[in-house]
Amino acid sequence: MKFKAEITIMPLKELLDPQGKAVLHGLHNLGFSKIESVRIGKHIHIEVDADSKSSAEAQVEDACKKLLANPVMESYSYEIEELMNV
Amino acid sequence: MKFKAEITIMPLKELLDPQGKAVLHGLHNLGFSKIESVRIGKHIHIEVDADSKSSAEAQVEDACKKLLANPVMESYSYEIEELMNV
Repeated sequence: MKFKAEITIMPLKELLDPQGKAVLHGLHNLGFSKIESVRIGKHIHIEVDADSKSSAEAQVEDACKKLLANPVMESYSYEIEELMNV
Repeated sequence: MKFKAEITIMPLKELLDPQGKAVLHGLHNLGFSKIESVRIGKHIHIEVDADSKSSAEAQVEDACKKLLANPVMESYSYEIEELMNV
């Protein structure tokens, strides 16, 4: 079975997010004065072959920990769904 | 009222995603042989002050078009929710 995982990786709330601050500044310069806060992270779409949803989840969790996210600076969350059209 | 928008910006399906390819290669090197595809985009969290959900939506749509996403290379989608604890 194939599963897709939608992973969202965001900088931890306690940390400054210079990229977000720069974009917020840019938005204000463009006249978006009502936008008050911007934080920028990554979105990763993965397709994985696995026997079960829990096995897919274990692989995705492992991949996040080992490569995709830096736990010192980032938090991650994901949703896993079976791909029906394969 | 305050609203939060969760924006996901992904490279268009028709385009190569070199960052995703590099990460896929890295995952294979780490032994994740069952991961078949990786695409990497951005996730942006915005807080915006607006009178109504539709006004917040108009601002977010406009911000995506003018600054956040590059429509030649990226597609975007977003979800808007009222922030209750403010």
